[in-house]
Amino acid sequence: ALGAPVMAQANPKVSWKMTSTYTPSLPPLYSSAQTFCKMVEEASGGNFSIRLYPGGEIVPGFGVMDAVSNNTVECGQTASYYFYGKDPTFCFDTAVPFGLNARQMNAWMDQGDGLKLMRELFATRNIVNFPMGNTGTQMGGWYRKEIKTPEDLKGLKMRTAGFAGEVLSRLGVVPQQIPPGDIYPSLEKGTLDAVEFVGPVDDEKLGLQKVAKYYYYPGWWEGSAQLSLYVNDGAYNQLPKQYQAIIAMATRYAGQQLLTDYDAHNASALRRLVASGAVLRAFPLDVMNASFDAANIVYKEFCDKYPQFKKVFDNYMAFRDEVSPWFRLAEGSYDNYLNVALARAKK
Amino acid sequence: ALGAPVMAQANPKVSWKMTSTYTPSLPPLYSSAQTFCKMVEEASGGNFSIRLYPGGEIVPGFGVMDAVSNNTVECGQTASYYFYGKDPTFCFDTAVPFGLNARQMNAWMDQGDGLKLMRELFATRNIVNFPMGNTGTQMGGWYRKEIKTPEDLKGLKMRTAGFAGEVLSRLGVVPQQIPPGDIYPSLEKGTLDAVEFVGPVDDEKLGLQKVAKYYYYPGWWEGSAQLSLYVNDGAYNQLPKQYQAIIAMATRYAGQQLLTDYDAHNASALRRLVASGAVLRAFPLDVMNASFDAANIVYKEFCDKYPQFKKVFDNYMAFRDEVSPWFRLAEGSYDNYLNVALARAKK
Repeated sequence: ALGAPVMAQANPKVSWKMTSTYTPSLPPLYSSAQTFCKMVEEASGGNFSIRLYPGGEIVPGFGVMDAVSNNTVECGQTASYYFYGKDPTFCFDTAVPFGLNARQMNAWMDQGDGLKLMRELFATRNIVNFPMGNTGTQMGGWYRKEIKTPEDLKGLKMRTAGFAGEVLSRLGVVPQQIPPGDIYPSLEKGTLDAVEFVGPVDDEKLGLQKVAKYYYYPGWWEGSAQLSLYVNDGAYNQLPKQYQAIIAMATRYAGQQLLTDYDAHNASALRRLVASGAVLRAFPLDVMNASFDAANIVYKEFCDKYPQFKKVFDNYMAFRDEVSPWFRLAEGSYDNYLNVALARAKK
Repeated sequence: ALGAPVMAQANPKVSWKMTSTYTPSLPPLYSSAQTFCKMVEEASGGNFSIRLYPGGEIVPGFGVMDAVSNNTVECGQTASYYFYGKDPTFCFDTAVPFGLNARQMNAWMDQGDGLKLMRELFATRNIVNFPMGNTGTQMGGWYRKEIKTPEDLKGLKMRTAGFAGEVLSRLGVVPQQIPPGDIYPSLEKGTLDAVEFVGPVDDEKLGLQKVAKYYYYPGWWEGSAQLSLYVNDGAYNQLPKQYQAIIAMATRYAGQQLLTDYDAHNASALRRLVASGAVLRAFPLDVMNASFDAANIVYKEFCDKYPQFKKVFDNYMAFRDEVSPWFRLAEGSYDNYLNVALARAKK
């Protein structure tokens, strides 16, 4: 039943600015930020409005953490592993090599200690962080030559970032940090041998299959990659509880949209890439094993060096090892059977 | 002088009743409904309140659809495949044999035609439906004897429901509809030979391992199972747009909680079940293949008989076949490798 009016205080006018690392050239990522803003506005009857700016417009793409810490903007969309240089522990908020898949990541954040541990870490930067979606498992990137053994990685100049670069360097790769706009020319000129970006939907826009046709899977450094909303803690604490609840819900709402966008559209993007010359290859088992071993060496070094990293690493990996057997047994056996059955039915 | 306050329309007082098929004896399911109500209340500053009743208190557990259709209650939590008897097409809103996994289901609902098709179907019952979570892949149930060949299914009196029962009957199973409370005694007395319920978290409460120790996987009739919130369309259309947005967000918020609850806790529940006598078995490939073939026969019959079923079936299965290759390539190869690597690392 509709009825009595309410106090104006329950639904005050609030206007925020939001910056993103991304721009409209990456539609799933950017449009999930737009959806977040739209839902906040609708759920508050138009009283809580957040104006979104693409990366580079008022804050540089990788300036999101500082801008939210300083309250230059009240909130921002990004992926925490870009801030690996400030503290490698931030990677656990996005992706680490041989880490959790998207559902396991949600489970660690919501039901395990993930959100609690990340909130502790972000509090030191005056940020309240919220998970806001996931890309799912990414691809292992584009290579000009086939990777048949771990030795084929040695000396490769490869565009990658953060923690993945650290592990790949142990395999002889020479990691390069290059903005998306410069990737294609660098590959064309031969100053790059390989590039990892995201997956079919985003990679398709770069046209890389024309210059580096071998497209490898899986991206073992990003079994899933979580996106985040950062909110300045002072701004957050001034919000009525009602708007805090709306932020919690709008981030999950937009986050689900992000993952379903990739899950629904990667298949067709991959088909188009293959049709225009991409050659799909699985990383050989030897390469996967060498990568797994290299990751574990780096993990051990980082745990010895950074107590905060070790604290989160132990919790994250214990969760992975705890839930994996169930995923293998139920989800894995179901998905694997169905894939075989569908292939059989096609014949 | 009396006058309408400025904000009155933006945040009106609304009080609804909600019924559930479930009771607090199934904590993930029931607590996700509680979370939905709590988030709606918080996000509306306490002005939109929904009082939740467990199944059987004001409406029978399986009376949710009728109660919401008739506006006996404004909304309700249930799984649409319980209403298979009214129209088998409702199954696509929950689970069908060899159907989509949880992420694919979200993608079909959000990005494919799933929600649109289901909304058309539910409109004929005066219901606006919202997805509200998923159980993930379920188990294949508890059996007193091992299932070594398809022949071992013949004559089994098995507790199952709806569409799964229809397919299993083609394999010689005699399906029984039995409420959860009567399952254990029926197995103990020997009037049942097998039971499928949900998965480790929920199954653990029934103690079935004491009387039917073989615990089979995967539940091919529920590669995932979506839960739903039903809202009476008249009640929904009277809501301000603000509260409609809050419902859309709160259902996703609570829905994610449901899946992460199962994803985080099935592993430990399964370990406890095995420790207390459950014997894990994968359905043999022959049994899976016979089931797959039987499902396809039933699908064909239903498509010939029910045009609405065929319309949704064609769309749903086209989506499955479209996205599956990507899932196999990226998620599948990542998950499968990691499972092998973790097993290798343990040795």
